[in-house]
Amino acid sequence: MIGRLDHVAIAVADVEGAAATYRDLLGARVSEPKSLPEHGVRVIFVELANSRIELMEPLGEASPIATFVARNPDGGLHHVCYEVGDILAARDRLLDAGARVLGDGEPSIGAHGKRVLFVHPKDLCGTLVELQEA
Amino acid sequence: MIGRLDHVAIAVADVEGAAATYRDLLGARVSEPKSLPEHGVRVIFVELANSRIELMEPLGEASPIATFVARNPDGGLHHVCYEVGDILAARDRLLDAGARVLGDGEPSIGAHGKRVLFVHPKDLCGTLVELQEA
Repeated sequence: MIGRLDHVAIAVADVEGAAATYRDLLGARVSEPKSLPEHGVRVIFVELANSRIELMEPLGEASPIATFVARNPDGGLHHVCYEVGDILAARDRLLDAGARVLGDGEPSIGAHGKRVLFVHPKDLCGTLVELQEA
Repeated sequence: MIGRLDHVAIAVADVEGAAATYRDLLGARVSEPKSLPEHGVRVIFVELANSRIELMEPLGEASPIATFVARNPDGGLHHVCYEVGDILAARDRLLDAGARVLGDGEPSIGAHGKRVLFVHPKDLCGTLVELQEA
């Protein structure tokens, strides 16, 4: 079912500072910052040869990552995103197995303009997983 | 400097259970378990189209992930591993920038038979980073 590892997301307090770290210490190519108010985050992507890292900082009062960053002021690994061919089939397979899909169970449009769902960390090895339709 | 995302490591209490979750809920291809007593872990790899997930459980009394798993009984994202062309050049670049390389600063032989180093999470966005020579 899952295909590519689309990205690994790292939540930080300062996304420009994190991008400078990746650029200067690790010699990585980083994108321009982009604000996504509908998702409550500001993001910069680190482009790797086979995948990418999504650096993100909280944006706005109701940011879904505000609590995480408050608890992890240095930043931290937040979630992984796997591609799936059919997001509704993926959702149904998870629900049939008793896993919890976050929100109302309907896909939303993610940061890349594709349909996404998040699965409860307790059902997937303590890891927040985003599924994104390819 | 960094090239491919070689793997994302998820530490769990029960690596067979985690692999079954990835296989049955996410339809992923998983490897046979492998004990690596010299690293204090037992691992199963989830093979993705472009990268892989290293599921690992503590092995032995002195496992370096025992404390992490005790604190995260459901499991959790533990580290990311980036490939580099020259591990000593990568280390020197990090040290010159003031970053802390764990251990004595000399590469060890990682789970894949290649030279690896770990960088202190506080110097890389709160994320434990493994660098592996390609």
